[in-house]
Amino acid sequence: MNIKDSKLPQKKIVNDPVYGFIDIPNGLIYDIVEHPYFQRLRRVKQLGLTYLVYPGAIHKRFQHALGAMHLMNSAIEVLRNKGHKITEEESTAVLIAILLHDIGHGPFSHGLEKTIVHGINHEEISLIFMNKLNEEFEGKISLAIQIFQNKYKKTFLHQLVSSQLDVDRLDYLRRDSYFSGVTEGAIGSDRIIKMLNVVNDNLVIEAKGIYSIEKFLISRRFMYWQVYLHKTVIAAEQMLVKILERAKYLSNNNIDLFATPALKYFLYNKIDKENFANSKSLEKSSLDFFAELDDYDIISSLKAWTYSDDKPLSMLCKLFLNRKLLKIKIQKQPFDENVILEVKNDVQNNLLLNDSELKYFVFSGEIISNTYSIDDDKINILYKDGTLLDIAEASDVLNVSVLSKIVKKNYLCYYKI
Amino acid sequence: MNIKDSKLPQKKIVNDPVYGFIDIPNGLIYDIVEHPYFQRLRRVKQLGLTYLVYPGAIHKRFQHALGAMHLMNSAIEVLRNKGHKITEEESTAVLIAILLHDIGHGPFSHGLEKTIVHGINHEEISLIFMNKLNEEFEGKISLAIQIFQNKYKKTFLHQLVSSQLDVDRLDYLRRDSYFSGVTEGAIGSDRIIKMLNVVNDNLVIEAKGIYSIEKFLISRRFMYWQVYLHKTVIAAEQMLVKILERAKYLSNNNIDLFATPALKYFLYNKIDKENFANSKSLEKSSLDFFAELDDYDIISSLKAWTYSDDKPLSMLCKLFLNRKLLKIKIQKQPFDENVILEVKNDVQNNLLLNDSELKYFVFSGEIISNTYSIDDDKINILYKDGTLLDIAEASDVLNVSVLSKIVKKNYLCYYKI
Amino acid sequence: MNIKDSKLPQKKIVNDPVYGFIDIPNGLIYDIVEHPYFQRLRRVKQLGLTYLVYPGAIHKRFQHALGAMHLMNSAIEVLRNKGHKITEEESTAVLIAILLHDIGHGPFSHGLEKTIVHGINHEEISLIFMNKLNEEFEGKISLAIQIFQNKYKKTFLHQLVSSQLDVDRLDYLRRDSYFSGVTEGAIGSDRIIKMLNVVNDNLVIEAKGIYSIEKFLISRRFMYWQVYLHKTVIAAEQMLVKILERAKYLSNNNIDLFATPALKYFLYNKIDKENFANSKSLEKSSLDFFAELDDYDIISSLKAWTYSDDKPLSMLCKLFLNRKLLKIKIQKQPFDENVILEVKNDVQNNLLLNDSELKYFVFSGEIISNTYSIDDDKINILYKDGTLLDIAEASDVLNVSVLSKIVKKNYLCYYKI
Amino acid sequence: MNIKDSKLPQKKIVNDPVYGFIDIPNGLIYDIVEHPYFQRLRRVKQLGLTYLVYPGAIHKRFQHALGAMHLMNSAIEVLRNKGHKITEEESTAVLIAILLHDIGHGPFSHGLEKTIVHGINHEEISLIFMNKLNEEFEGKISLAIQIFQNKYKKTFLHQLVSSQLDVDRLDYLRRDSYFSGVTEGAIGSDRIIKMLNVVNDNLVIEAKGIYSIEKFLISRRFMYWQVYLHKTVIAAEQMLVKILERAKYLSNNNIDLFATPALKYFLYNKIDKENFANSKSLEKSSLDFFAELDDYDIISSLKAWTYSDDKPLSMLCKLFLNRKLLKIKIQKQPFDENVILEVKNDVQNNLLLNDSELKYFVFSGEIISNTYSIDDDKINILYKDGTLLDIAEASDVLNVSVLSKIVKKNYLCYYKI
Repeated sequence: MNIKDSKLPQKKIVNDPVYGFIDIPNGLIYDIVEHPYFQRLRRVKQLGLTYLVYPGAIHKRFQHALGAMHLMNSAIEVLRNKGHKITEEESTAVLIAILLHDIGHGPFSHGLEKTIVHGINHEEISLIFMNKLNEEFEGKISLAIQIFQNKYKKTFLHQLVSSQLDVDRLDYLRRDSYFSGVTEGAIGSDRIIKMLNVVNDNLVIEAKGIYSIEKFLISRRFMYWQVYLHKTVIAAEQMLVKILERAKYLSNNNIDLFATPALKYFLYNKIDKENFANSKSLEKSSLDFFAELDDYDIISSLKAWTYSDDKPLSMLCKLFLNRKLLKIKIQKQPFDENVILEVKNDVQNNLLLNDSELKYFVFSGEIISNTYSIDDDKINILYKDGTLLDIAEASDVLNVSVLSKIVKKNYLCYYKI
Repeated sequence: MNIKDSKLPQKKIVNDPVYGFIDIPNGLIYDIVEHPYFQRLRRVKQLGLTYLVYPGAIHKRFQHALGAMHLMNSAIEVLRNKGHKITEEESTAVLIAILLHDIGHGPFSHGLEKTIVHGINHEEISLIFMNKLNEEFEGKISLAIQIFQNKYKKTFLHQLVSSQLDVDRLDYLRRDSYFSGVTEGAIGSDRIIKMLNVVNDNLVIEAKGIYSIEKFLISRRFMYWQVYLHKTVIAAEQMLVKILERAKYLSNNNIDLFATPALKYFLYNKIDKENFANSKSLEKSSLDFFAELDDYDIISSLKAWTYSDDKPLSMLCKLFLNRKLLKIKIQKQPFDENVILEVKNDVQNNLLLNDSELKYFVFSGEIISNTYSIDDDKINILYKDGTLLDIAEASDVLNVSVLSKIVKKNYLCYYKI
Repeated sequence: MNIKDSKLPQKKIVNDPVYGFIDIPNGLIYDIVEHPYFQRLRRVKQLGLTYLVYPGAIHKRFQHALGAMHLMNSAIEVLRNKGHKITEEESTAVLIAILLHDIGHGPFSHGLEKTIVHGINHEEISLIFMNKLNEEFEGKISLAIQIFQNKYKKTFLHQLVSSQLDVDRLDYLRRDSYFSGVTEGAIGSDRIIKMLNVVNDNLVIEAKGIYSIEKFLISRRFMYWQVYLHKTVIAAEQMLVKILERAKYLSNNNIDLFATPALKYFLYNKIDKENFANSKSLEKSSLDFFAELDDYDIISSLKAWTYSDDKPLSMLCKLFLNRKLLKIKIQKQPFDENVILEVKNDVQNNLLLNDSELKYFVFSGEIISNTYSIDDDKINILYKDGTLLDIAEASDVLNVSVLSKIVKKNYLCYYKI
Repeated sequence: MNIKDSKLPQKKIVNDPVYGFIDIPNGLIYDIVEHPYFQRLRRVKQLGLTYLVYPGAIHKRFQHALGAMHLMNSAIEVLRNKGHKITEEESTAVLIAILLHDIGHGPFSHGLEKTIVHGINHEEISLIFMNKLNEEFEGKISLAIQIFQNKYKKTFLHQLVSSQLDVDRLDYLRRDSYFSGVTEGAIGSDRIIKMLNVVNDNLVIEAKGIYSIEKFLISRRFMYWQVYLHKTVIAAEQMLVKILERAKYLSNNNIDLFATPALKYFLYNKIDKENFANSKSLEKSSLDFFAELDDYDIISSLKAWTYSDDKPLSMLCKLFLNRKLLKIKIQKQPFDENVILEVKNDVQNNLLLNDSELKYFVFSGEIISNTYSIDDDKINILYKDGTLLDIAEASDVLNVSVLSKIVKKNYLCYYKI
């Protein structure tokens, strides 16, 4: 980060390829950015394993969090210019809220949330982090936490952080597009922000922005199917899950595995929601270990496991690291049991696996996605006469009900003989 | 144009901000580009009066034609790599066909097609131009003309020039977006071209390109409503129509008007389809005069008409040039006759116009648009099992029936008191 | 221009492909932008005839003026953040000064300044325009004029408008690069602006910006030789000068020529500095006519002159419009008189010209250019210890003396037989 | 990597944000890209620790190698079009040579080349890799190796891979600029490639490309001082060197350190040039271990070392990971011994270090850089009359002697109390 430490009244600035320069607005925010909790995000890829399909998609959560803060700043300016009062304190709070909204993400979180940590999701961990930071910063983050939790009176501030049209999405679509090279995900975030307004304490879009919203929703859908849920990415994520499941199985059986300290803690202890904030390993809490966990722990351990005596573990790790990924088939209907059985037989015979090992090389499951949640807060369009309409009704061209439908697909992953 | 005239075996190259460099593939195409008919397109804006709303949108038809040729070249390479035979002769012909597909456009053609020329549209004029060029080039353009008219056996070559998914659209959306600064119109033309294929002599898109096509259709819709049919653009175009109607009225009444030679010919003669190719004014045909007509004739004449003694003409021209455009209102229903009458009364009293002059300052009409024509050739999606589905059926998220519906809106234009 | 006319407290905004959106900061500036004097700049190309080599270079002075204002706004914010006081009144004045700095440019001004108008340059005309506007705006532009003329106490404000490192250059390099597609001209204007500071009332660059300045000077040099002084552009400009000289010769001899009203005034009257502000043609001053003159007057008249009985005039105009430009040779030494004579003989025999006509088809001259003027204000680099050094001394890699040297080259233009 | 493995005659394609799509030209090249040696480059950052200043600069050597291959393809096409014969075999060989030119880079190679491996540089390791691959691919890489080593008769092919103007530099300047967001490093690689030519078996640039070359050299210099040699980056690199020196010291003293398998090998063995290719650790050679070493080994080990009992090691690792970097001062002259001593005293007293530990927290050294090597192959400019001039003579504006001068600067790094 290109931050000047002179005492001159100069702004702190970060170079960012998406927006040019990002200003750090004040000293409190600067201190949060400098905190080890936030610096960890430099070592957590925003898109997990997507880089195995799109080699450029190696940007980090650190950059995204700063970018979202940058857009939040623009949004605040636009709303103030339209006459909506946002105090300096509220402004700082909402900037901190967006900066920290993803602080609880672990490495490769889609793959890891169910193997390393149980029964606690990244939003809950984010909140634990925020509360911890609030202690350290002597209550200065309280308002940010209220906004994050939607407990502050001004709802629209929460909606800027988390809603169908939050600056989180506005940044990540543009940023994921920039780094992956999938230009179709680039959205007109500037134009959308200029169209923001507030009615009855709710964030709305002015009517002439309706086409921008349609385009935003379609771009998002595009990125979902072309990038985020690309079948090769899913195959890689599922392989990683299987690798970690096997490692967890071995550690549960007291087999000694190489692991970085932070990963070792999560492999050899059972961590769930309850003991997350409280459990102590000597002097360190689960949170402390989680605050150390990043992409490097996972990948370096996988590399070491190629030396493991356990055949499924070492074999999967070798395949994964050399990008010889399992094959994947995707279809709407669940896969026929007989088909799966046949594949299993072939693989078992070919790899000489025993029954308990086979499940790591042939397995099926469901992918679930929805682009627009009709039950959550809606995207409301504000017409000149003051009426409001959900985009689902306002747009004649989009079947928003389709976007909002939870799409389930089935996959079958298997070792290609 | 940065064209090297050395005799070294070097390619002719044009600098283009959208694609970097555009190669001119061979000598025949180079000679067509150099022809005065094609050079005229340097003086005809691609988007007519759109620059009054988007100041950057001043790119010319010349650039678009070259850009579309550039994409055609890529499309040919992709299809050849997929095993579809395209001979060198066919390749040159389809490149010429796309280069000349808009050669018949007059200046500000949306506004002018009904005032300057009657009963003949730009496609028909394009064909007359092509036939004339074919004479000059001794038959070398015959195959290009066949393809343009869809009379050649390989239908997909015509579809590359003119269909729901032709390279014309792929270039103009991207180019109009680049120059106007409306980034939302940028489409992934490279990705779409890579997805092209041919089945049963018809251009199709491979199934995994379905999201690209959805995005293409939505981007196109976006550009229609945000740019091409922007209400201020429509107001400007209608003002230009009224100015030319008044000029035509005065010339029909033998009142002498300043005009450039080419415009004078069209003002003081009645030109329709029949006499377009045949009529002679001394030694020059209507085509010869049309081949001289460009943006400069129109705007310079408007500027001179600010000196006219005719009040409606001089007043409208002054308003137009200083961008004091008529107000416009747009709604789905036709405007109430009483409302129009009231506006008319106000304007008449304010400007002291007589009854016959009033219609230039208050008038209503219809705008018609459709983004996807369901009756024309469809966009067919090719699935891995070989089945084909129109995008209207293949996409669950788009109401293609809405896109394909002809949208009619009503406008009321009037002098703002 | 996408300007909202609602009375809501919304900002006026212009879409710009280079910067995204440009805000119009206040009502006075909005009124100036709307004034016919400023709207004329929509019809004057920034780079004259450069589009004959780079087809995309058709952007207008209107866009450049707004873009420079946008950068000025950033510069003001940066300097204020560094503790330099700039009042609201000064801020508005310096924004107006940059907006109007080129208002006096005629169409194709490099070619025209010596044929249409004599002994008065575009800076002087800009000043006349500003004074006229100041009358209309009842003195509200006085401070802007003082800054423009460097008569205001704060010198650095003038330097932002006009110096080796003014926002004029920062915008035009980036904009000319964007539209021409010559990406090498793009400079890091954001970074340079962030490095601006003021010492002793002079604009300086902080030391760590030295590489940015080197790159800026080299980019500028690049654009000079690759674009602005491209030999084909020079050939076109010289042809245009010859055409206008011939037209002026004919009008001086009372031969009636087609011309738009504004051009007619300048062809049939002798306009110099003295009578520019004062001369009256009936009720209109030279300034009034100049305020009407734009690219359309020139090109449409050239088109009409292809019909002229005067052989040199009609022939040159035809060649020009069909881009059959005169050949040009460029060398450091003046061309040998015998060489020129030989070329003249060939052309005279081939075209059957009389002696007085020959000079329009074969002629030689000088091109003069310098990229950095050592005598003018310098680019001063501010070191951390407070010392200041001119970039000419501060940079070890650049021969700034070469950049600052006036480069003279000789050209020979001639009709290619 | 978005590579289709179907047997249809479709090209393999990689998405790249810099160029859009990169084609994999043939099966042999595809197999090399898929090889674990090449896949390792997915896990080695192109710019080492630069991301600590420019957060976006996290692109990998994998992407650069593919990008350079893409430009090589363009260069081959340009040279062929100018009449220079390049056979299919030569074309494939030069593409492989550029693909593999950096295969020998270790992680954070600037920092590591002197701590982990001794007396062997990355070019030598690249060659060992290539020879190993050549065995595996049964001699099919022989010609590529000849070109890489400049042992093939056509010298210009080697120059495309490695010279002052190779495609390596053309890609990395553009790519480093794209990812870091330092737009000033972007060069007109397309234009430079179009200007390439071959004279007497040497790569040259046609004369009108001289400004492009000036700009290329200045952009490169810009990137050197603004990015590659940014003082904070140097401080980080020197910290990493000190950390590894300490780890090596501890391992030499048989103290057990956490390390990934590959790093452990290099920490606990002394590896130099001689035993690099030959030494065996059981069945694995040094090369095998090197082929496993990437960024993950280094950073994950640093993370584990924060738990070390060794105070210098754990303390430096904590500082490094939380980006509390040592302070750095840079000046032309060596630092005064007394100044260094004073700093040392302060730090020793503050951190309570013993004498042997102090050198990790206060140390000085030299940075050496040159942008253009006058002794190596030159950049020759080809004039129309056939004469050749080195850019050092051809450019009047650049002191190429300055660019080519080895620049030495001195730094002092120290713990900030």
